[in-house]
Amino acid sequence: MGDCQSGGCGSQNQAKQEQDVELKNTLSKIKYKLIVMSGKGGVGKTSVSVNLGIALANRGFKVGIMDVDLHGPDVPRMLGLKGEVEASKDMPKLTPMSYSDNLKAISMECFMPNKDDAVIWRGPLKHSAINQFITDIDWGELDFLIVDSPPGTGDEPLSVAQTIPDAKAIIVTTPQEVALSDVRKSINFCKKINKEMFGMVENMSGYACPHCGETADLFGSGGGEATAKQFNINFLGKIPFDPKIVKAGDSGSSYQDENQDAVAAKAFGEIADKVAELLNT
Amino acid sequence: MGDCQSGGCGSQNQAKQEQDVELKNTLSKIKYKLIVMSGKGGVGKTSVSVNLGIALANRGFKVGIMDVDLHGPDVPRMLGLKGEVEASKDMPKLTPMSYSDNLKAISMECFMPNKDDAVIWRGPLKHSAINQFITDIDWGELDFLIVDSPPGTGDEPLSVAQTIPDAKAIIVTTPQEVALSDVRKSINFCKKINKEMFGMVENMSGYACPHCGETADLFGSGGGEATAKQFNINFLGKIPFDPKIVKAGDSGSSYQDENQDAVAAKAFGEIADKVAELLNT
Repeated sequence: MGDCQSGGCGSQNQAKQEQDVELKNTLSKIKYKLIVMSGKGGVGKTSVSVNLGIALANRGFKVGIMDVDLHGPDVPRMLGLKGEVEASKDMPKLTPMSYSDNLKAISMECFMPNKDDAVIWRGPLKHSAINQFITDIDWGELDFLIVDSPPGTGDEPLSVAQTIPDAKAIIVTTPQEVALSDVRKSINFCKKINKEMFGMVENMSGYACPHCGETADLFGSGGGEATAKQFNINFLGKIPFDPKIVKAGDSGSSYQDENQDAVAAKAFGEIADKVAELLNT
Repeated sequence: MGDCQSGGCGSQNQAKQEQDVELKNTLSKIKYKLIVMSGKGGVGKTSVSVNLGIALANRGFKVGIMDVDLHGPDVPRMLGLKGEVEASKDMPKLTPMSYSDNLKAISMECFMPNKDDAVIWRGPLKHSAINQFITDIDWGELDFLIVDSPPGTGDEPLSVAQTIPDAKAIIVTTPQEVALSDVRKSINFCKKINKEMFGMVENMSGYACPHCGETADLFGSGGGEATAKQFNINFLGKIPFDPKIVKAGDSGSSYQDENQDAVAAKAFGEIADKVAELLNT
């Protein structure tokens, strides 16, 4: 109240209005916004975000990856991006980190001097951070903005849905029932908040033993495809488990560029093609 | 302000005080409180919570499992518990769901008629739900309360830390670096909020091919043990990946009771023994 009487409220409103204008302006330069979600953690959501981003960039699209998993931001490590994003006096916006000419990324980790620090924030602060990841970053013209969201149906995906109304959801799952039951929650979450469900990816779908070549279903198989059919969502593809994806993610090297003939590498490429085809780009 | 002037504020304060008394009363009957955390999702945190609970219950301890993963509550499915918890007029508290005489559990899912519904809550509502999971549930006398927390360092683990000040943290991780970097965040989170780090479990540590018997490291190996040593945390044990754990979790049957000779089943038992030994129970 005191602030309002002294005029503080008006300047706050003005700042909010300016941010809203900036938000619309930034988003208008981005053709397609994809939010990569999962019901359950550890299904390889970030691996899919990063590898889909690389595959689209390899196909000539301009891609940005926005890592809004504020508590466990893994995108920079997986892309091998180090250092911090810094503000400069002359530039009104921050430059995102660059993986290649076609692929930029931003993450909470880019702002943390000690990468092992924990972000202990409750909801409202997170919402504000997500807003700034759009308004304060110089994304430029993009074909795709891929938003890597933390698992579940909590603050972050809700904030992204509110901040980027035309974002389309890609849901990543493994084939086991425990993951699928959480996927159904994600689908209901999207329905409730009127978010378009664009497609589903089944990850860690089968594993070929490196010793004998026989395939084993680590987490069952086919459950993601069946769930996509049941809810009438585009099924974008299956990616088999490959320990080299884990190793590449840990070391920050590009799995698909280094293992071009691997089944999983081809699967990422096919998913990128399908995404582009479905969106008529 | 209006509420305070009309006395509403006083009655709100009184309700809060009564809840605080009830909270202390309930917690005083529980000998050890363990919060099972992970930096990253999908490392098998819930599998560890559930199997540690079953192993401790099999050893004669009275155990409660409190599932505070409000967005992806998997404990009831993994324990094969169905139906809802209902309030009755005659009982002041709700009876938790019962897996066996020694093992009770409560989860957001117990209150949801449609199990596929998404809980779309921001922080403050979650805090209140976690509080009520303690004060409104008839836990009785327990040796162990195992709190299965969602991954990361967000609202839920923070609320548990505030609500149960003497909870000790068990951190579950897989051996790969992407998981370990998030574990270091969890460790720093515990340090910041003065939460005792009790122990670490390395899950999905190696995998024996069901066809040829050869072992493969799906997610690397040894990283959890090394991190525990680095931060001077008790290392509670390694659990190999076994697809039967996934299947048992999906069907709600007890992996360790049905596969008593399996390496992973024995590992869960040894972890339970170590927990009991370290706590001098």
